[in-house]
Amino acid sequence: MTITAIADGTITSPQGFLAGAASGGIKNPQAPRKDVGILFSKAPCVAAAVVTRNKVKAAPIIVSSEHVADGRAQAIVANSGCANACTGPEGEEEARKMAAIAAHKLGLASVDVLVASTGVIGVRLPMDRLSSGIEAVELSRQGGHDLAYAIMTTDTRPKETAVSFAASGRTAIVGGIAKGAGMIHPNMATMLSFIATDAAIQPVYLADSLRRAVDISFNMVTIDGDTSTNDCVFLLANGLVGNEPIAAGSPAAVEWEEALTRVCQHLAKEIARDGEGATKLIEVQVRGAVDVAQARSAARTIAGSNLTKTAVYGSDPNWGRVLAALGRSDAEMVESKVELHLGYLCMMREGRPLAFSEVEARALLDKPEVTFRVDLHLGSAEATAWGCDLTEEYVRVNSVYTT
Amino acid sequence: MTITAIADGTITSPQGFLAGAASGGIKNPQAPRKDVGILFSKAPCVAAAVVTRNKVKAAPIIVSSEHVADGRAQAIVANSGCANACTGPEGEEEARKMAAIAAHKLGLASVDVLVASTGVIGVRLPMDRLSSGIEAVELSRQGGHDLAYAIMTTDTRPKETAVSFAASGRTAIVGGIAKGAGMIHPNMATMLSFIATDAAIQPVYLADSLRRAVDISFNMVTIDGDTSTNDCVFLLANGLVGNEPIAAGSPAAVEWEEALTRVCQHLAKEIARDGEGATKLIEVQVRGAVDVAQARSAARTIAGSNLTKTAVYGSDPNWGRVLAALGRSDAEMVESKVELHLGYLCMMREGRPLAFSEVEARALLDKPEVTFRVDLHLGSAEATAWGCDLTEEYVRVNSVYTT
Repeated sequence: MTITAIADGTITSPQGFLAGAASGGIKNPQAPRKDVGILFSKAPCVAAAVVTRNKVKAAPIIVSSEHVADGRAQAIVANSGCANACTGPEGEEEARKMAAIAAHKLGLASVDVLVASTGVIGVRLPMDRLSSGIEAVELSRQGGHDLAYAIMTTDTRPKETAVSFAASGRTAIVGGIAKGAGMIHPNMATMLSFIATDAAIQPVYLADSLRRAVDISFNMVTIDGDTSTNDCVFLLANGLVGNEPIAAGSPAAVEWEEALTRVCQHLAKEIARDGEGATKLIEVQVRGAVDVAQARSAARTIAGSNLTKTAVYGSDPNWGRVLAALGRSDAEMVESKVELHLGYLCMMREGRPLAFSEVEARALLDKPEVTFRVDLHLGSAEATAWGCDLTEEYVRVNSVYTT
Repeated sequence: MTITAIADGTITSPQGFLAGAASGGIKNPQAPRKDVGILFSKAPCVAAAVVTRNKVKAAPIIVSSEHVADGRAQAIVANSGCANACTGPEGEEEARKMAAIAAHKLGLASVDVLVASTGVIGVRLPMDRLSSGIEAVELSRQGGHDLAYAIMTTDTRPKETAVSFAASGRTAIVGGIAKGAGMIHPNMATMLSFIATDAAIQPVYLADSLRRAVDISFNMVTIDGDTSTNDCVFLLANGLVGNEPIAAGSPAAVEWEEALTRVCQHLAKEIARDGEGATKLIEVQVRGAVDVAQARSAARTIAGSNLTKTAVYGSDPNWGRVLAALGRSDAEMVESKVELHLGYLCMMREGRPLAFSEVEARALLDKPEVTFRVDLHLGSAEATAWGCDLTEEYVRVNSVYTT
């Protein structure tokens, strides 16, 4: 593998991608911040998307799913401050208009523009302010940083990364940005992620590889068990590196998937680490499961348990809560076979609690990254999930969000 | 119906039931409180139990399931402060010993004593102190109140109720107690409930009617999405009223199920109202679902959503969160048909947000009981779930529980 992190990497690190952001005053015209942004590729792109499985789909999700159906796109327009969800047929019309305004500015067809919105549900987009915001966006090769900032809601910091990889003898780059914070849960939560690469990739394979990478990254993050109406991951590949298009089964495919997964997992962990009110990242590794679906369920259920999360917050080595969460997951388990570790400490083996130093356990729980490892000793499937602790600050942030 | 609430009703309100509690110092010998209790019937009882579906079952659940398998029991022994869960074969042996100690005191066979424990997981029972506690229990006709107190953990108040009903021409009583607080979720969470009646009821029918009542009461309560290892509902019927045993399909059966459901729903709502850190009871009524399972999933998912719960806490009319929770539930839904009410205010109809007075919405959310009504307009099935708001106090309580 020749995958290398790019310093200060972002979504505009790959060739031919420009981005920018501007203040639309979407959420609050009195206190404007950058809340409208655009990603643009100089060349047409092969494109793929993975969107929320929530049965309530926001208008931009509906529109973007249509626009990406042909496997092509050349730009993304996004806003924070208003999700344009639960807004009826009028909201859908406004999402189409948002794409059209950006398309006009960029000299593209509407169908080549994907749309994403995040923020409060049930409120209509302020189209005048949004339109002015889109017009005000200035695109640049460094603009990925601004775009990453513009899509933030309760995030405390932007999430960006890029890596280089070998694409059929040439060096390509894949970079991405994301916003997360609350309402994050398996199957895509209030989470936007945009990913771009200058490698050439075959369309069907691009979509397949994105789905696989999302399954072991964004879909393994849980903040609060709530899945949003607006989640989406968009991936654009403009091929400007000039490599032979990467196809399934080719040698370059292994490298590409590793690079894409690296980007997605980095962003997913950043989302968990920056969960609303979070002070710690929780990583849950499950192995020995009967199959991967069960391993994932076990890891996500533990990482998403309010009682696990509050125990980690309080650095309380109450490992029984981890076991109770495991027991209500979809994973088969035999209590007398279960092994449970907190960091390097084994807390349970063959279903029996082990003596451990509470001082050492608390020291492990006091760290900014807390790892639980579970071995079910039933099979060979494994999975990893990420979450964060549950704090008073989470409650404060979420009890006053619309106000 | 002739169902009437009994003043100061508890589990010893029906004839022939005695109870009592004592201090075993189970959790903290230095600060003893009543933490060991017994329910005893003067006559042998027909008995039924519904226990946790968590795959990790505490030792007392395993032992009680064996003891109730013959449909008979005459006493319950319970403790708080230690769950005797995840304690391996030793823990199971100790649960058996706990039943045996109580049986010896009461002059019964062990198999006629059910056992229940609640508290911290992964810690062994202090058998000496437990044994002294059991010995110290004094039984009385008013002892139900003490028993309700002894099973509390982070509950702020005991939960008790009783009603009278007509049993084949005689007046019978059914009374119950419960403990709840945290880790409460569909399918029986850290929740103990004991119910007693002096009516005579056929054994198989007793178990069936308990399952039905639990499905629309305790199984519709959610505090934090966590399901415990120790949950159980035990029901004892001693027949001392002398009625002809109530059987399925008999006229008395309707009255009995209504009375039993009344007791179970009262206790379930008290558990939700007294959830850890809770300031408000949330009731979610779903109708128009395709089937009952879907109606239940929708109601429970909304009531259990951290984002719904924090919005209610902050009296924030952010109804989009209710819709987002609905959309990730197992219920079929068509967004353009959904109708959503907060109390008397309609917030959404046919998938479109409606204008409403934020002042009125906040006033409804400021009340101690907040009701959401959802009509899916797809079928005729309905269900109701109960939950509570999520507060900073929940986090505080749960981040320091074992210490």
